[in-house]
Amino acid sequence: MNMEGEASTVGWARWGATKNAKALPDSASTLLAQVLELTPPPPAVPLAEVTVPDCELDDTVLSALRRALGAEHVVTTHDARARHASGMSTPDLLRHRHGEVPVAPQAVLRPADHAEVLSILGLCSRYPVAVVPFGGGTSVVGGLTPSATRHVAVDLSRLDNVVAIDPLSRTATLQAGLRAPRAAELLAEHGFTLGHVPQSYEYATIGGFAATRSSGQASAGYGRFDDMVMALTVATPRGTVRAGRAPASAAGPDLRQLFLGSEGALGVITDVTVRIRPLPAQSHYEGWWFESFADGLHAVRRLAQDGPRPTVLRLSDEVETMIGATGSGRADGGCQLIAGYEGTDVLPTVEAAADVLAAHGGVPLGDEPGHQWARHRFDAPYLRDALLDAGAFAETLETAAYWSALPEVHDRVRLAILDALPDGALVLAHVSHVYETGASLYFTVICSPGSDPVERWRKAKAAASDAIAAAGATISHHHGVGADHRPWYAAEIGDVAVDLLRSVKQQLDPAGILNPGILVP
Amino acid sequence: MNMEGEASTVGWARWGATKNAKALPDSASTLLAQVLELTPPPPAVPLAEVTVPDCELDDTVLSALRRALGAEHVVTTHDARARHASGMSTPDLLRHRHGEVPVAPQAVLRPADHAEVLSILGLCSRYPVAVVPFGGGTSVVGGLTPSATRHVAVDLSRLDNVVAIDPLSRTATLQAGLRAPRAAELLAEHGFTLGHVPQSYEYATIGGFAATRSSGQASAGYGRFDDMVMALTVATPRGTVRAGRAPASAAGPDLRQLFLGSEGALGVITDVTVRIRPLPAQSHYEGWWFESFADGLHAVRRLAQDGPRPTVLRLSDEVETMIGATGSGRADGGCQLIAGYEGTDVLPTVEAAADVLAAHGGVPLGDEPGHQWARHRFDAPYLRDALLDAGAFAETLETAAYWSALPEVHDRVRLAILDALPDGALVLAHVSHVYETGASLYFTVICSPGSDPVERWRKAKAAASDAIAAAGATISHHHGVGADHRPWYAAEIGDVAVDLLRSVKQQLDPAGILNPGILVP
Repeated sequence: MNMEGEASTVGWARWGATKNAKALPDSASTLLAQVLELTPPPPAVPLAEVTVPDCELDDTVLSALRRALGAEHVVTTHDARARHASGMSTPDLLRHRHGEVPVAPQAVLRPADHAEVLSILGLCSRYPVAVVPFGGGTSVVGGLTPSATRHVAVDLSRLDNVVAIDPLSRTATLQAGLRAPRAAELLAEHGFTLGHVPQSYEYATIGGFAATRSSGQASAGYGRFDDMVMALTVATPRGTVRAGRAPASAAGPDLRQLFLGSEGALGVITDVTVRIRPLPAQSHYEGWWFESFADGLHAVRRLAQDGPRPTVLRLSDEVETMIGATGSGRADGGCQLIAGYEGTDVLPTVEAAADVLAAHGGVPLGDEPGHQWARHRFDAPYLRDALLDAGAFAETLETAAYWSALPEVHDRVRLAILDALPDGALVLAHVSHVYETGASLYFTVICSPGSDPVERWRKAKAAASDAIAAAGATISHHHGVGADHRPWYAAEIGDVAVDLLRSVKQQLDPAGILNPGILVP
Repeated sequence: MNMEGEASTVGWARWGATKNAKALPDSASTLLAQVLELTPPPPAVPLAEVTVPDCELDDTVLSALRRALGAEHVVTTHDARARHASGMSTPDLLRHRHGEVPVAPQAVLRPADHAEVLSILGLCSRYPVAVVPFGGGTSVVGGLTPSATRHVAVDLSRLDNVVAIDPLSRTATLQAGLRAPRAAELLAEHGFTLGHVPQSYEYATIGGFAATRSSGQASAGYGRFDDMVMALTVATPRGTVRAGRAPASAAGPDLRQLFLGSEGALGVITDVTVRIRPLPAQSHYEGWWFESFADGLHAVRRLAQDGPRPTVLRLSDEVETMIGATGSGRADGGCQLIAGYEGTDVLPTVEAAADVLAAHGGVPLGDEPGHQWARHRFDAPYLRDALLDAGAFAETLETAAYWSALPEVHDRVRLAILDALPDGALVLAHVSHVYETGASLYFTVICSPGSDPVERWRKAKAAASDAIAAAGATISHHHGVGADHRPWYAAEIGDVAVDLLRSVKQQLDPAGILNPGILVP
């Protein structure tokens, strides 16, 4: 077993392995140097030098866990514990770079199956010790950093099988710890795809997608992850819940939807049955240009509402287009749109969508921007590393709103961030998930770090979150609640719902061991 | 106020007003006479002659309710109470015909708005008196017949407004008591449609659709009702829950999905924000013939999975086709399919779908069967009245399953019903709601009533429900749980989920007043 340096895990203090690092495009470097005063920071503290207090779990607990899982699956090494202490938000990375980790798990547990997860929950409820389910470790909202003083991480990486495939019904049951690229490989052997490709794709897991209501870059065509879930199995301290039985049902409340988005606070998702689709025979990505974000939004809305619906649809605002975050920005203003098409025979859809885009002022930019986007579709977190290396601060946040509210949300959030960072910041935004009734908005903020970048960002993020709430949008479209969004989440759902959620947690997790401080206000 | 004979309410002891009665097609009458020995029953006991015990609510409660709602909205008349005592299952209708009603509500309350519903819940929690929310009164699963000995019906018919329409985002907020035809009228004034047309359309309400997870005849094109719900407002004894804030969200569990399908047991839904679509400019319905149900299923699956997706898609099995439930059956065996298309320019879709249907052995029957279906799309419950008038027993049940399980579910349920009715029964079935991963199955059973038709059917229905469960299908695709499906529902969701649902109810409804005995096992 090698948990400390596998290529398949995220990097230490950065998104990916150093060998995969991506350089900033020259245009971006030049612009940044003009706009921000940046001083490259000292090199990151190496993992081995990070202080992690010794494991304080008493021998009774450890012995019981070792009996349940096998001693080699109760890992208490320094590196494993440091790596399982937090996620991948920029504040997480900055803390790593400074050699700090939040309260690290006492041990990293690696159960083999659902039954072992149930055993862990039973043992941890008895002692009690808090439990943090750990998939790909890619949370950007503090979802892996509980408020408990003593916890264990339950690393699901050994639950990495395809349990069943039903090609006629087009469903597959996938274990929670399966990473997205491996799930794709295994499904491809049967001629299928999940079509779920979020930016965290390289590291994120099936269970994580379910627990956080992930949404992928191809959501316009394949839907959100929660749309794909036909059934799921959840281990709770009270026992097993198996929710979802048929393609659709009127048999009571949809209990799947209580565990989707539950972020480890209500149980540990151990497998998920998803709707799958045949591997597309063709794919085509292309670029379009619009004079303004408003024009682009109008065109995107028409495609989302009346079709034909591309598989990928993303519209950058003027600032994001100018900076060319995708590496193909035009310098003459306006907004860039990427449309992607996957399927058996995409040409008729490409042409019909082109008619709609052109009718709404779109100017075709050809395939090259599309290819650029496809080549660089997973680059953003690597570019963040490059920005941090250059001495900049970079972070993202996101929301979703109805079409009629979207322009106002865009304005208010931008202004709130700019107000909170008075010495200058670049605020880029794009729409990348569309629905008949509205769309997501994804913001990237680049600024100088100041003397206390974590605290500075906390305030700017709070201002952005307040603006999101004030504009009636949701506090998260696909990142989740975690620890970071909890106050806004509570306000969003209201007091009666907060009490309801607490009572659900109390029922399923009477000892309160499951991810305390995450999600549930 | 006239609650006792409005054309807009369902009939007494029958689905619709007597003037709207439909005669059985000759072919069906002839066949029935050959297969079943039928003796026309005595005429139904008129509503006025039905015994309803006097209202036993004490004056304190009644006075408090009158103060809260206005005296004229606390109705204790014989007819109103009898009409609000049950739904429209065949056992309900048979009891009505015999002059029996289950325990009738002590009073029928007609709140004007959400605030008045909250007041009712507060008052009824205090005394306590059970509360049964009443929309269109069309439940066929005992959803309006609580186990409480003393209850009031909360008739939502005064909550019948469109609260807001957002044409850009294509959403509308509709009050819960709005009946479907009136909602359609009001949306049509703005150029929109909901596209939700279940068989109960003439009488059912928006709140009822949400509370029971209704699915309409055009679900292949417009989706199920629960797919359409963007947000809903629920009055609970603990206060108000407003769930749903954006087109999509990763902010925690989807609490809408806890109230959709909650059947009045967790709260009273007072308004629903739905996704709406432009009124279709064109509609086209046509018939196809397949040599067998298996062939038809294959074709339907291909359309559901790979498109193009018709708006309406229904495939009758051999028996249903033979009996010509839609009035257009062919006598030479095989299965009939109805495909309906609604949209701006339907011809390309009609043609592309025709290619798929033909490639899978479909023989086009032209428009006439489609027109027949469209003309008679709401007839089934009237034909049930005609069958009951002729002395037959007729009832329906339904489920949904994955494609790979569907043929077995079809066989097992048919056989279970035939076994349970050894002196002969006609069991008809069709698929009328399709998904990528599976479809619904809807069974109609026609048999002689025997000496105790209600008890006889209880046993046959139990056998069918056992077969559904044994085949791994869901106990209801769109009728709901009510009182009738409760044991199978409990088994379907499992013990941990049952306890969870009970704790949710306990949290929201500590006095246990909301529809006791319905849904929650």
